[in-house]
Amino acid sequence: MAKHDPSTPLGDDDRTARQERAQAWFASLRDRICSAFEQIEQDYTAAHPEAGAAGQFEQRPWTRPEGGGGVMSIMHGAVIEKLAGNISTVHGEFSPQIRGQIPGTKDDPRFWASGISLVAHMRNPFVPAVHMNTRYLNTGGEGGKRWFGGGADLTPIMPNETDTADFHAALNTMCDGHDAGDYPAYKDWCDEYFYLKHRDEPRGAGGIFYDYLDDGDFEGEFAFTRDVGETFLDIYPKLVRRRMDTPFTEDDRHHQLVRRGRYVEFNLLYDRGTTFGLKTGGNVEAILMSMPPEVRWP
Amino acid sequence: MAKHDPSTPLGDDDRTARQERAQAWFASLRDRICSAFEQIEQDYTAAHPEAGAAGQFEQRPWTRPEGGGGVMSIMHGAVIEKLAGNISTVHGEFSPQIRGQIPGTKDDPRFWASGISLVAHMRNPFVPAVHMNTRYLNTGGEGGKRWFGGGADLTPIMPNETDTADFHAALNTMCDGHDAGDYPAYKDWCDEYFYLKHRDEPRGAGGIFYDYLDDGDFEGEFAFTRDVGETFLDIYPKLVRRRMDTPFTEDDRHHQLVRRGRYVEFNLLYDRGTTFGLKTGGNVEAILMSMPPEVRWP
Repeated sequence: MAKHDPSTPLGDDDRTARQERAQAWFASLRDRICSAFEQIEQDYTAAHPEAGAAGQFEQRPWTRPEGGGGVMSIMHGAVIEKLAGNISTVHGEFSPQIRGQIPGTKDDPRFWASGISLVAHMRNPFVPAVHMNTRYLNTGGEGGKRWFGGGADLTPIMPNETDTADFHAALNTMCDGHDAGDYPAYKDWCDEYFYLKHRDEPRGAGGIFYDYLDDGDFEGEFAFTRDVGETFLDIYPKLVRRRMDTPFTEDDRHHQLVRRGRYVEFNLLYDRGTTFGLKTGGNVEAILMSMPPEVRWP
Repeated sequence: MAKHDPSTPLGDDDRTARQERAQAWFASLRDRICSAFEQIEQDYTAAHPEAGAAGQFEQRPWTRPEGGGGVMSIMHGAVIEKLAGNISTVHGEFSPQIRGQIPGTKDDPRFWASGISLVAHMRNPFVPAVHMNTRYLNTGGEGGKRWFGGGADLTPIMPNETDTADFHAALNTMCDGHDAGDYPAYKDWCDEYFYLKHRDEPRGAGGIFYDYLDDGDFEGEFAFTRDVGETFLDIYPKLVRRRMDTPFTEDDRHHQLVRRGRYVEFNLLYDRGTTFGLKTGGNVEAILMSMPPEVRWP
């Protein structure tokens, strides 16, 4: 695949075509993820009739007054205590305060961004929580910047070396199949990003995190970004099925709710997407849908 | 009482005497507050033996490696789901990053600060949550600044005009008895401060908030600050006793836990003390002890 020099402006048709392809991918990935989790709910409740009805996703569309919008998919089920997914495609102009803080916006405040993000909090404390997000951005119009970003990371409540190793191995193998996939660098970036400085502790067991991926190989970078989603969709449901029948105690549950406090602290104190979104008038419900359903600070 | 021109340096003896008096007051107020809440617990559990044992405060001393420390007082009881109080007296030098952001520290980074802070989250959703804090600061040594700050504010879970009106009336009457007490200004400051911008909603029903109180009348300003504590100690236990027997449903409890999420959002996104403390290496347990014991983001 021929590389496109990222400093050369793309024509409108090319830009639009790339945006449409990315946006369509995020929606199709969302559909497959929703199916996979609804299947987990059906299988679990079939085996455990006492657990009640299988969870189903509820879709909540939202629009952004300044341009664009998205659809939240939320499930509260028997295995999945809360899974919140969001696909969004937004566009507009950055305010003067923000302008210049984001690549490509210094001379032209226009932006276009599309992505999928997902956070799952599980009822069973032995099933790790998870986060996955991929996105495609285009800032500054024709002469500006275009890049992919995203990642996936695991937050075990009960430390489990097997699950963590399998999750990382899947991401490592996937990265190795792509020129754009630099697993050691993206793993370090993830460890650095998902860190609670005030407690001097990591949020979870890591994964990968990448951003500003714009080396001129759109096809390769898009393929890598798709594969982040595919790998998540393959490995995480396996970990859920592996642990969802593990018996747990009230003490385990209490520990889980306390650990979720760390997740809240991270999101509100450090997460760029959350703090940026809330300070720039983003959709509060969509931004905070990742918050855990129940939390304790005893 | 003769006013002292705040621009005239105080001698070491005077400075130390003022600091010692303020620090001693915060500790004595803490003791009386703890007694009042333990009495509530005893009275309630005597009338409701099924509610279990009366809550008692546990004291947890802590030290600050750079200088000073404090004592946390925490109770989990039958009426009081979590009450966390803290008295602290800390001193040292502000780091170069902080220096200049705080009055009096531009030419001399030394500071001394003492205070009491308290947050109460109650089991019964019809009993409002409350926050009270008063403090005395001395920055920049002899030629620097000295001031009082603090306030008290109410967070009803179920809107209740009577409780809110009584709380405000007590603060209003108290303010009217002091030259330093400007109720309309402090009420507005409180409303402005305890505001969740991202949701465009207030955190609660307000109260008073004041800071940088340094008009040269130490005795008058100290008397006002003491009266903030006295007024809190008089009015809040009355509101607790008024509502602690009100029957409530699971739906009321759910609503309470959701509303507490707003409290968390405020503290981690906006509260100056919390964000400043966490970013400057403060005692995490003492800073976050105000977090609600149980919270939901459904």
